[in-house]
Amino acid sequence: MNGVILNTIEIIKKKREKEKLSVDEIKFLINNYAKGKIPDYQFSAFLMATYLNGMSVVETATLTEAMLHSGTIIELDSISGAKVDKHSTGGVGDKTSLILAPIVATAGVNVPMISGRGLGHTGGTLDKLESIPGFRTDVSLTQYKSIIKKCGMVLASQTKNIVPADKLMYALRDVTATVESIPLITGSIMSKKLAEGIDGLVLDIKTGSGAFMKELKDAKILAKSLINTAKAFDKNVIGIITDMNQPLGNNIGNWLEVVESVEALQGKEIPDLMTVTHKLAGAMIYLGGKASSINEGVEISEEIIKSGKAYDKFLEVVKLQKGDVSIIKNLSKYPKSKYTEEIIASKTGYLKEVDNYEIGMSALQLGAGRLTKEDIIEPKAGIIFNPKIGDKIKKGEIIATIFTDRKKEINSVITRIEKALKYSNKKVTKHKLIKTILR
Amino acid sequence: MNGVILNTIEIIKKKREKEKLSVDEIKFLINNYAKGKIPDYQFSAFLMATYLNGMSVVETATLTEAMLHSGTIIELDSISGAKVDKHSTGGVGDKTSLILAPIVATAGVNVPMISGRGLGHTGGTLDKLESIPGFRTDVSLTQYKSIIKKCGMVLASQTKNIVPADKLMYALRDVTATVESIPLITGSIMSKKLAEGIDGLVLDIKTGSGAFMKELKDAKILAKSLINTAKAFDKNVIGIITDMNQPLGNNIGNWLEVVESVEALQGKEIPDLMTVTHKLAGAMIYLGGKASSINEGVEISEEIIKSGKAYDKFLEVVKLQKGDVSIIKNLSKYPKSKYTEEIIASKTGYLKEVDNYEIGMSALQLGAGRLTKEDIIEPKAGIIFNPKIGDKIKKGEIIATIFTDRKKEINSVITRIEKALKYSNKKVTKHKLIKTILR
Repeated sequence: MNGVILNTIEIIKKKREKEKLSVDEIKFLINNYAKGKIPDYQFSAFLMATYLNGMSVVETATLTEAMLHSGTIIELDSISGAKVDKHSTGGVGDKTSLILAPIVATAGVNVPMISGRGLGHTGGTLDKLESIPGFRTDVSLTQYKSIIKKCGMVLASQTKNIVPADKLMYALRDVTATVESIPLITGSIMSKKLAEGIDGLVLDIKTGSGAFMKELKDAKILAKSLINTAKAFDKNVIGIITDMNQPLGNNIGNWLEVVESVEALQGKEIPDLMTVTHKLAGAMIYLGGKASSINEGVEISEEIIKSGKAYDKFLEVVKLQKGDVSIIKNLSKYPKSKYTEEIIASKTGYLKEVDNYEIGMSALQLGAGRLTKEDIIEPKAGIIFNPKIGDKIKKGEIIATIFTDRKKEINSVITRIEKALKYSNKKVTKHKLIKTILR
Repeated sequence: MNGVILNTIEIIKKKREKEKLSVDEIKFLINNYAKGKIPDYQFSAFLMATYLNGMSVVETATLTEAMLHSGTIIELDSISGAKVDKHSTGGVGDKTSLILAPIVATAGVNVPMISGRGLGHTGGTLDKLESIPGFRTDVSLTQYKSIIKKCGMVLASQTKNIVPADKLMYALRDVTATVESIPLITGSIMSKKLAEGIDGLVLDIKTGSGAFMKELKDAKILAKSLINTAKAFDKNVIGIITDMNQPLGNNIGNWLEVVESVEALQGKEIPDLMTVTHKLAGAMIYLGGKASSINEGVEISEEIIKSGKAYDKFLEVVKLQKGDVSIIKNLSKYPKSKYTEEIIASKTGYLKEVDNYEIGMSALQLGAGRLTKEDIIEPKAGIIFNPKIGDKIKKGEIIATIFTDRKKEINSVITRIEKALKYSNKKVTKHKLIKTILR
């Protein structure tokens, strides 16, 4: 056995025995794994030991740093003004990025946003953007900088040079049941965000039936871990825990979410979606130094929507990223799904509970998402889901409309959505959208 | 991702969450891993989850059964009489197999012994036997049976058809820090022993500084796991926990241990070695139905040594397995090591403690053992270690003699052995050899 293999055994053994790993040990592991010198079968034993025995704040920050240095770290010093991004842990109908990025850029804070694709029940910002005909997320580093310089924002995909260690590690975690680990999630999220060249970061930690963290206490633990790691790198950070017990807004599915975002940018009142969006945007504006508090940031955000400037900014970025602006201006020109089906309430009652994971998976089943990375998405597929928890629903009312090209999925999706809803005869209190703010 | 990969993720997840795996799940894992359908990187995550979260008695028995059925199970029904084997968890100077197998075979109980090689600080029966010129342990299944029929015993190596899953699993455990796991050790030991076609098994569980289980409580846990698994397969089983805080007998190193075994078979009094050997042989004779108690078995064992019949049986099996009988009859004809060095006591005192792991590793350093499976052993290398804990040692007395062809190791081994010994001015009580008997 060579020295790398032998050293790796000793490091796995330490983590197995719940001992803390040194900076050198963590760097040794990540560097050698990224270089292909540590085989997958050793690294997966390390991942499982880490999953079960955890990591300290210092270990997690070191892991993040080692991952970060596996690839290119973007330098944005040539761009004046603060650079602030937002990261969401993922949810159903979560299209806040498309609305808040133009708001924050309009407020004078740069938003150098690099996003991911959807997997499982959650959507991904890139898939939503790419439902706009022509829209390119695969910009070069030069384009990335020049788009930010021109309009104060960019909506890009991760290039293969950004944290290559994360791509390798995520693929391995995916097949070894080691995805849901706080230090591993933290390293994955923070290394990618730090590679963007940001000064500040707002974290949207989702909690509820449609989130990875079902319980508020787990969401808080993840938020703390992310915040601690951001601070270890001297970044300004705010963590906002938000509700994901039902879809955010009404539209689920890539193009459907672009439509709802454009309507929101045009000033349409969508209470839950805009409450969360303004809070996140307000926090970003505050971190970017353009407001003296989050609340002042929220007020600025609301004004920018009213002024129509955020909508103009969105059109500007769509154009810069080669998207078809005419279709944004005339949403109804977009191709239609072959099948449109309404789901009708069979009884009267108050909506008490939504299994939001099932709603997300229903959208996936209709073609809006992917089970594995290789699956192909159908951009126009999805669901318009009308009620909110606490609403009184009358028999015969339209609960949801589904859009799909997959005829054979329709009946099972209708049943799936109906089963995902629980009703009560008594009044039900509405969910609090903003659970807590951590920093 | 294919179905096997997906199912494997779900099974790993269950073990990760400390849930019990079903019979079908364990069989699915082992069968598909043995067939190469589950990749190493998934299986190592399962191994680490099992290491950290354990397995129940039922899960361990199922694991053992699945491993057992990955290869050939030897059928010895054509051989009349009971078939009883012994397994030791490994130690320093542990040559009991070479002495007890001829004793038990002489008592009329068949001993179909399949042994392993040494690794790290512990020796292996195969390496000891193969230090006898010409001795063949790689017998075919036909030869295996015919040798037992002729002389009531065989001393064989594992063929590649016996529990192939264990070879794959052990190689992976070795590089993923998952060796020291009670259920995995149990599966490995018991699947191989059950494949021999035995009716009964005596377990020699070593405890102390030269054993894998340093603490008596851990040795008891392992003994219980092995015994429970043997019982699940309706085998008669006795577990004897014995002391491994110092070398067993005086000789350490392959040929040196053959010499000491032959001397013991010829009736030489070696108190610690023969106390353990007679107890194990007695238990085997009892399990084989040739004594009404372990103690009666011990008496029979002692008589057989005195009669010289065990020595004759040893010569018989050496001849049947193509070994050079003349050199056993004239031990001094064997080649000598290039260098022989004595270690002299530098002070007077009672021997209080021996770091027996260091004694084993010193023998390895001289050429008697291997760090990795690829290392080549020097059969004549080793140590004759004279004192026992509790003995009074006088300044100038010979503590040990080392034998090696590796000149450059001599000084460091002398220092290593000296450092491994602790003395006391006060009298020291001797160690109890037989700690406890479990069944």
